[in-house]
Amino acid sequence: MSNYVIGMDYGTLSGRAVLVDAADGTIVAEAALDYPHGVMDRTLPDGTPLPGSWALQDPRDYLEVLEKTVPQVLKDSGVDPEDVIGLGLDTTSATLIPVGEDGLPLSFHEKWAAVPHAWCKLWKHHAAQAQAERFTTLMGEDLLSHYGGRVSSEWVYPKILEVREEAPEVYEAADRFLDACDWLTAWLTGETKVSACSAGYKAFWRKEEGYPSRERVANVAPYLADVAETKLDAPVLALGQPVGCLTEEACRLTGLTTRCVVAVGNVDAHASVPGSGLSRPGELLVILGTSACSMVCAEQEHFVPGICGSVMDGILPGLYGYEAGQPSVGDTFSWFVKNFAAEEGFRGLDEKAKALKIGESGLIALDWWNGNRSILNNADLSGVIFGLTLQTRPEEIYRALIESCAFGFRTIIENFESHGVPVEQVYACGGISLKNPFLVQLYADVIGRSIRVSPVLQSPALGSAMTAAAAAGCYPSLQEAIRAMARTDYITYEPDMDAHVAYDHLFLIYRKLHDTLGRDLSVLMQELKKGGQLI
Amino acid sequence: MSNYVIGMDYGTLSGRAVLVDAADGTIVAEAALDYPHGVMDRTLPDGTPLPGSWALQDPRDYLEVLEKTVPQVLKDSGVDPEDVIGLGLDTTSATLIPVGEDGLPLSFHEKWAAVPHAWCKLWKHHAAQAQAERFTTLMGEDLLSHYGGRVSSEWVYPKILEVREEAPEVYEAADRFLDACDWLTAWLTGETKVSACSAGYKAFWRKEEGYPSRERVANVAPYLADVAETKLDAPVLALGQPVGCLTEEACRLTGLTTRCVVAVGNVDAHASVPGSGLSRPGELLVILGTSACSMVCAEQEHFVPGICGSVMDGILPGLYGYEAGQPSVGDTFSWFVKNFAAEEGFRGLDEKAKALKIGESGLIALDWWNGNRSILNNADLSGVIFGLTLQTRPEEIYRALIESCAFGFRTIIENFESHGVPVEQVYACGGISLKNPFLVQLYADVIGRSIRVSPVLQSPALGSAMTAAAAAGCYPSLQEAIRAMARTDYITYEPDMDAHVAYDHLFLIYRKLHDTLGRDLSVLMQELKKGGQLI
Repeated sequence: MSNYVIGMDYGTLSGRAVLVDAADGTIVAEAALDYPHGVMDRTLPDGTPLPGSWALQDPRDYLEVLEKTVPQVLKDSGVDPEDVIGLGLDTTSATLIPVGEDGLPLSFHEKWAAVPHAWCKLWKHHAAQAQAERFTTLMGEDLLSHYGGRVSSEWVYPKILEVREEAPEVYEAADRFLDACDWLTAWLTGETKVSACSAGYKAFWRKEEGYPSRERVANVAPYLADVAETKLDAPVLALGQPVGCLTEEACRLTGLTTRCVVAVGNVDAHASVPGSGLSRPGELLVILGTSACSMVCAEQEHFVPGICGSVMDGILPGLYGYEAGQPSVGDTFSWFVKNFAAEEGFRGLDEKAKALKIGESGLIALDWWNGNRSILNNADLSGVIFGLTLQTRPEEIYRALIESCAFGFRTIIENFESHGVPVEQVYACGGISLKNPFLVQLYADVIGRSIRVSPVLQSPALGSAMTAAAAAGCYPSLQEAIRAMARTDYITYEPDMDAHVAYDHLFLIYRKLHDTLGRDLSVLMQELKKGGQLI
Repeated sequence: MSNYVIGMDYGTLSGRAVLVDAADGTIVAEAALDYPHGVMDRTLPDGTPLPGSWALQDPRDYLEVLEKTVPQVLKDSGVDPEDVIGLGLDTTSATLIPVGEDGLPLSFHEKWAAVPHAWCKLWKHHAAQAQAERFTTLMGEDLLSHYGGRVSSEWVYPKILEVREEAPEVYEAADRFLDACDWLTAWLTGETKVSACSAGYKAFWRKEEGYPSRERVANVAPYLADVAETKLDAPVLALGQPVGCLTEEACRLTGLTTRCVVAVGNVDAHASVPGSGLSRPGELLVILGTSACSMVCAEQEHFVPGICGSVMDGILPGLYGYEAGQPSVGDTFSWFVKNFAAEEGFRGLDEKAKALKIGESGLIALDWWNGNRSILNNADLSGVIFGLTLQTRPEEIYRALIESCAFGFRTIIENFESHGVPVEQVYACGGISLKNPFLVQLYADVIGRSIRVSPVLQSPALGSAMTAAAAAGCYPSLQEAIRAMARTDYITYEPDMDAHVAYDHLFLIYRKLHDTLGRDLSVLMQELKKGGQLI
C-alpha cells in the first residue's frame, strides 16, 4: 500500500492540485480551476469601484479550488482518501488577507463586504507605492541590505500601512494580516503557523531577530510600532514542517481525512525549487515565464546587492535562500510579437532568428521593459535598443531581445558569484524553458554553462507535494523528499563554447551600456519615464 | 516677347527639365525621364560583374534626358526655341566621370566599355572607403577643418585614387575627371569650366588656394601629386556664371539654338536654395527627403565642426556656403512602416502619433539609422531607442523617430549658431515637407522657430533655371534672379511655444544621450556595428 500526498499551487488566475505518489514523486492525477472572481481591479463583487493600481482577490475562490480539484484528483486516480497523508500548498505572495478573530477574511462578513481595504490584496496591488518609499527611506540600511536596498510596494509592511492610514477601522478590526498561503494552512488545520519563506521575503522577518523592532517601525510610522506583536505574531516554520492535521470542516470540503498533515505554505516561485529537483547549495533555478526569477541557496549569508532578498530557511530548510528577478522576459517577447510581428508569429521569428550569426545584426538591447529588479533595483528604468540601421529586420530585434534577457541573467549569476554565493549548476523550469529550445540554448551559450531543464510542467505543485511528504514524515527532511521524489530526466543544453566566446565580447558591451544607462545616467532615464508629466 | 530659361535636374534615378519664364519664374512646362540604365550596381551593360558597394551610371542616359525632355517642354509650352536664352543644370555629386581627350566619357569607347573603372562612378559608389580613410588621416587637419574633419568615400579624391590604384591604365587614359554637372556643361558648350560648388564641396578646392598642393597630396599618395594640374585643371566658376553657348551638336539634340547660354553646373541639393527663394545670409534651407540636407550662407568664414563643408561661392555667389546633413530621415520612417507597421501605414500612424502628448511615451531615439553626418561625422554610429516598456505602442515609436530627426536638426542649427553662423529664418522643401504637415509642425515646435515651406515641387530644377537666367544676363546677379523668379507664397508653420518648452526638456535629455553614445562611448557603438565580424 502506497502513501500519497497532494500539492496545491495557487497562481494569479487559477489554482491546481496534483496527487503524487510519496515514494517516487509520480504525478498520478491533476486538476485545475480558474478563480470565479479572477483579479478584481475595477470593482468589488457588489460593484463598489476600486481606485487605479488596485488588485484584489476573493479568498472564497481559494476554498473553491480545494473543493473542486481535490475530490477530482481523488476520483480520477482512484486513490483511497485514507492513503493521502499530506497536503502542501503554495500561493502568490505577498497576497495579504486581513483576518478577523474567527479566522475568516474580514471580507467574508457582510459588515466589511463593501470596504475595499477589508479584502485580500493580491501581490500585484501596487497602490502602496508611497508607503513603500517611506519604508525604503526610513527602515534602516542594515535591514534593507538583506533585500537589495529597496522596499517593494508589493510587500507586507507597505500594504498594512496603507490599510492603517486609509482605513484605520479595518486595521483595528483585523486580528491578523496573513499571507494567502498562511491563511489557507490556518483554515485547513485551525492552527496559525506562518511560512519562513513569505515572512522572510515579504515581511522583513529574520530567523535571528524576528520581525523588525518597535523602534525601527516607529521610525517609519509610529502607529504601526506594535504591528508585529498585534497583527503578525505566530510561530514561523521552515519549509517541510507540519502546521497540523485537517479539521473536520476541511475534510468535508476536500474529501480527505483528519490523518492528512498540512505542511507550512510556500511562495509559488520558490516551490519550483524542490519541484525541479534542486536540493543543494550552488544549484540555481531560473523560472522562465512572463518574468524570470532566479533562486539559489548557500550555507553562509552574504550581502548581495540588487537582489530581492536573502532569507534563512526561505527556499530550502537550513540554508540561506537568495532570490533575484527580471520583471519582464516572456512579456517582452510577447510585446514585440503582438505589436510588430503578429503575422510572422513566434514560430517564424524563432526560425529566422536562429539562422542569424552572433553579433551579425549589430544590435544590443537592455532588458528593462518593465524596469530592472536585479541587479539595479530600479523600477523606473526602461528598455533600450542600440544599433538600429536601415537594414535591421524584425527577427534581428527579436533575437536581440532574447539575448538581452540572457545577458541580464548572466549579470545576475556573476553578481551572486562576485559577492560570495557560488553557482555550480544552472537549472531552468517554466513555460518558455519547455517551449523554446532555441532560447535555452542561447542562454547556455551566453552563460557558458550547461542548463538542465526540468521536464515537469507543474513544478510548483510537485514541490508543494514534496513539502507535504516531508511534513507527513515520509522523509527525515525536505531535502531527502526532493532527492527521492524529483524527476532527474532533465533536458540538458550544453554551451557551444565558440558561441560563448563570441557572446563574451557582446556581453562586455552590454555591461558597459547597462552600467552607463542604469547607474551613471539613471536619473536621466527616470526623467524620460516621467516625460508625460511635462505638458 | 518673353525670355525663357530651362532648368535641368539630374537625380539618382531620373532627370527632368522645366521651362521657365525668366521674368517671374513661372514654370510653363516640365518633363522627366527615368534613366534607361538606372543605377548599375551588379553588372555593366555587357554583363561584366561589379564588386559589392559599387554604383555606376551611363552618361548616355544624361544625354538622353536632354534629347527627350527639352524638345518635350518646348512642344508642350509652344515656346519658340529662339526665346530660350539660357539653360542651367544640376546633378548628383560627386558623380565622377573619367573623360578622354575627345571630351567623351571613356566608357563611350569600345576599348573601355568592359572596364568598370572607366565608367561614371555615381555619388553613392562606396568602394573607395580605404582611400577615403587615408585622406582623412594624412590630408592635414587645417584643410579638413573646412570639411568637418573627415573625408567621405563619395568624394573626388578617394574616387580618383581608387582608379589610380586599381586600374592605372584608366587613370593614364583619362584626360580629366569631371563631375557629372561639369561634364554636361562641357558637352553642351564645348568648353570645360567647372562649378565652385562641386569643386569646393567634393574636391577640396578653395577659392583662396585652389586645389590642394602637390606636397599635401603626395603625403597621401605620391603618384597622385600632380592630379590637380593633369586631371582637374579648369576655370572654376561661381553659380550663375556662363560656361558658353550651345554647340551645333547640342542644338541638334535639344532643339534649342546657339543663342542659348549654359550656366555653370550645380549640385542637386544646393540648387534647391535658389529654387526655394533663398538669397540672403542667415536663411537656412532644410531639404526633407529620404535624407536631409541643411544649407545656410554667411558673409564670414567660420570653422564649424561636424559639417559637410564650408565653401566660398558654394551655394550662393559671394557668400560662404555651409552644408550639414542627416543621412537618414524619410528612410528611417519608411524602414519602420515597412518592417513594423505595414498594415497601419503612414496615414494611420500619423493620425495616432499626432494625438499623443509630448513626452507621454517616455521614448527618445537617436536618429542614426544610417550613421551621423552632422554634427558627429561618424558613419559607424547606429540608431538607438530609449524608454521602451510593455505599454509602448507602434505609433509612439513612430513619433519618437520623427522627434529624433527634429532633435538632430535642432542640434545642427545650434551648432551653426554657436560657431558664429547666424540662422535667422528656416525654410523647408522636399517631398516630406509638402506631404506631412504634422512633421513640419513638430519640427517648428522642437526648434521654436517658424518654418516656411516652399510650394515648389521641383525646386532644384527651378533653381537651375534661375542660374540660367543669371548666366544669360537677365539679371545682374544670381541673387537678383532669385528675388525676381522665386515663389513667395510659402506655407508657414508657427511654433506652439508651450510645445516648444516641453520639447526643450526632452531635447536636453536627447543631447546628453547623443553626447554620451556619440562621443564618450562612440568606440563601443562602432564595436557593436562590427559585431558581425566576430564569429
